[in-house]
Amino acid sequence: MGGEWFGFLMDKLFERKALDVWYTPIYMKKNRPAVQVNVLCEDFNEEDIIKVLLEETTTLGVRSYEVERTILQREKVKVNTEYGDIAIKIARGPGFIKGAPEYEDCKKAAEQNQVPIRKVYESAMMAFWSAYYIHKIKNLEE
Amino acid sequence: MGGEWFGFLMDKLFERKALDVWYTPIYMKKNRPAVQVNVLCEDFNEEDIIKVLLEETTTLGVRSYEVERTILQREKVKVNTEYGDIAIKIARGPGFIKGAPEYEDCKKAAEQNQVPIRKVYESAMMAFWSAYYIHKIKNLEE
Amino acid sequence: MGGEWFGFLMDKLFERKALDVWYTPIYMKKNRPAVQVNVLCEDFNEEDIIKVLLEETTTLGVRSYEVERTILQREKVKVNTEYGDIAIKIARGPGFIKGAPEYEDCKKAAEQNQVPIRKVYESAMMAFWSAYYIHKIKNLEE
Amino acid sequence: MGGEWFGFLMDKLFERKALDVWYTPIYMKKNRPAVQVNVLCEDFNEEDIIKVLLEETTTLGVRSYEVERTILQREKVKVNTEYGDIAIKIARGPGFIKGAPEYEDCKKAAEQNQVPIRKVYESAMMAFWSAYYIHKIKNLEE
Amino acid sequence: MGGEWFGFLMDKLFERKALDVWYTPIYMKKNRPAVQVNVLCEDFNEEDIIKVLLEETTTLGVRSYEVERTILQREKVKVNTEYGDIAIKIARGPGFIKGAPEYEDCKKAAEQNQVPIRKVYESAMMAFWSAYYIHKIKNLEE
Amino acid sequence: MGGEWFGFLMDKLFERKALDVWYTPIYMKKNRPAVQVNVLCEDFNEEDIIKVLLEETTTLGVRSYEVERTILQREKVKVNTEYGDIAIKIARGPGFIKGAPEYEDCKKAAEQNQVPIRKVYESAMMAFWSAYYIHKIKNLEE
Repeated sequence: MGGEWFGFLMDKLFERKALDVWYTPIYMKKNRPAVQVNVLCEDFNEEDIIKVLLEETTTLGVRSYEVERTILQREKVKVNTEYGDIAIKIARGPGFIKGAPEYEDCKKAAEQNQVPIRKVYESAMMAFWSAYYIHKIKNLEE
Repeated sequence: MGGEWFGFLMDKLFERKALDVWYTPIYMKKNRPAVQVNVLCEDFNEEDIIKVLLEETTTLGVRSYEVERTILQREKVKVNTEYGDIAIKIARGPGFIKGAPEYEDCKKAAEQNQVPIRKVYESAMMAFWSAYYIHKIKNLEE
Repeated sequence: MGGEWFGFLMDKLFERKALDVWYTPIYMKKNRPAVQVNVLCEDFNEEDIIKVLLEETTTLGVRSYEVERTILQREKVKVNTEYGDIAIKIARGPGFIKGAPEYEDCKKAAEQNQVPIRKVYESAMMAFWSAYYIHKIKNLEE
Repeated sequence: MGGEWFGFLMDKLFERKALDVWYTPIYMKKNRPAVQVNVLCEDFNEEDIIKVLLEETTTLGVRSYEVERTILQREKVKVNTEYGDIAIKIARGPGFIKGAPEYEDCKKAAEQNQVPIRKVYESAMMAFWSAYYIHKIKNLEE
Repeated sequence: MGGEWFGFLMDKLFERKALDVWYTPIYMKKNRPAVQVNVLCEDFNEEDIIKVLLEETTTLGVRSYEVERTILQREKVKVNTEYGDIAIKIARGPGFIKGAPEYEDCKKAAEQNQVPIRKVYESAMMAFWSAYYIHKIKNLEE
Repeated sequence: MGGEWFGFLMDKLFERKALDVWYTPIYMKKNRPAVQVNVLCEDFNEEDIIKVLLEETTTLGVRSYEVERTILQREKVKVNTEYGDIAIKIARGPGFIKGAPEYEDCKKAAEQNQVPIRKVYESAMMAFWSAYYIHKIKNLEE
């Protein structure tokens, strides 16, 4: 299966509500480099996902097993930066908090302002951490 | 473990009825690039497979878990091409059919006819799809 | 540098007329998995490309060397399939011809017709090879 | 998440009694090269390990599943080489025995003697196999 | 060559003044996964580096070619964080400035303060960007 | 291009006197995992090699650059082991000597004696190093 189909496959898997899709480079018999397609999905759409894999790829079979997930509570906040408003995905765990700027927002801001995406990320992170550290939004942590 | 043993290992695992064997490049502690050996096998020969892994490699242990397999119904047909007869592996799913030329046949035909393997594949696929599309072997699909 | 910036970087490099961009997974000191960013470009925009790499990534330097390119003559033809018209990129070399369906066309056709992209490719390839083999468009080869 | 954090993460996971940690290069949506972090641990510290993963990385979730382990009986012996004493990790299985020199010992010996680590390994392996083959420590095998 | 020697090799190459060392997973003939060892060095120590590669590995040859380097001007500043002083590597290009906390400083601070290395990085980056954005150390940019 | 063609390609490249062929997993635009085909060849057959690459793969172009090679002097000796005679490839450098058993010999011996290839390698290496260390074939080194 040529590399070109993998992009299409990924889109289709997410469209069918895959929770995650990732590709791993592998090596098979007879000197064949190949790609392992990995999908994380829920029970309700497993059949759907398997159908996409069988229809869209050259594979003759799909292997599945159950995993347990430990996920962080997530929410979104908006921060204001010199490049415009950027959403921050916040994740909270026991005793800690993490934030990451939304990629699509950063991309758009970087394109509109003609600056490296790095600068947008840094501004967004700084705004987020300022809110947390300086303005003492303490309730962020407890 | 040097790269050279991996070819031998793969042969031996298939000889012991592994259903599939593949290698994944990984990174381990202390800056060690390494290779994860993956084997798919059935219950009846799991012990055999593990024995090969322990005997033939430097590993100190083997990890195993169960997977469920969804596999397509398979059959083989022969098609006639300008480079000789080529077997096509056919797989059927609900509402679709896929075919792929047998690698060993294509290889032999490419060598005998001194043409790129690409041409043999294309001829074989064209013969297969012609049978399907043009000659209306409709029963291929239902 | 987080994985998210790489998508943006790739877009930007192509926007600045990179001929090709590809990423190689590598392993660096202190147990750091990393990504090698590779760009093929021409002389006229090398400086531009290097500027993007330095601005958009965390790298402290860029390494470059000259390569010689042997490229095939390319052209495009349209073929008619049951899923609509699909462009075929044709490449000619001394004594051979290769064709590959345009990905974006196949993607659109697959989405519009709600069929696997595999089917669109196969139809397009069959149309292309039929034109070549059956209708004897012999001048395709010489 | 930048490559630099992975070295720290690995140390911390081993500190919390991970049995094994390894990284796999993967490819995610939106052209993002990424790294899959894999940890093998026991039941008693699974919670601890998950906590480290959530705190130290940018991930929003951890996936886990049970594996069965088949491990070889291990012991250590010391062999004497021209570069000093080197520990050999010995693993025994049904009908076979394997040995591998301890990396840290070889490293130290190579540094002190200013020789390639290859030479230290070879000397250590030769000493080990001589003990086994020549001095007939036959009970090593059964 | 087993994975264990690669860590030693990397140390030795840096000791002999390699500018950079990185490993790429590759696939060789006869189903052999392997590792490509890459070294960037200057002219004066090329011979030394090649000698290390030939002595320390199982390779039978080394291939070399010249690359041109475009490197950013670098300097170091110290910033004060709640976890102690952290060095920031600063790189300047035409019209931009980048900073990255020194890994070893962050590691030490994370260990001493028993916090995730992520928090140390974020504090250090915030301190650096505050100096730049808020206190208007404008001369950082021009 | 499907994984299956890569095995054929490798054979054909070696048949045309490639000195080395190796595959690197890479990531291309539009979420396409791909494989970089690398070939080392001499001047006299470069054109031949490029022709194979263009004919046998889907690529539209080949990139080439010159490398300088530093290679070790090689010779072969036979050693006698309990599993039969095994050839050892010997490589000499300034002040050192390396040996590696010939894979094909080890493979055959392992198959005939029904033992792990690991045992054959170890026996062969021990025989080689005994000749070197114990029987003082000193002229091996100078």
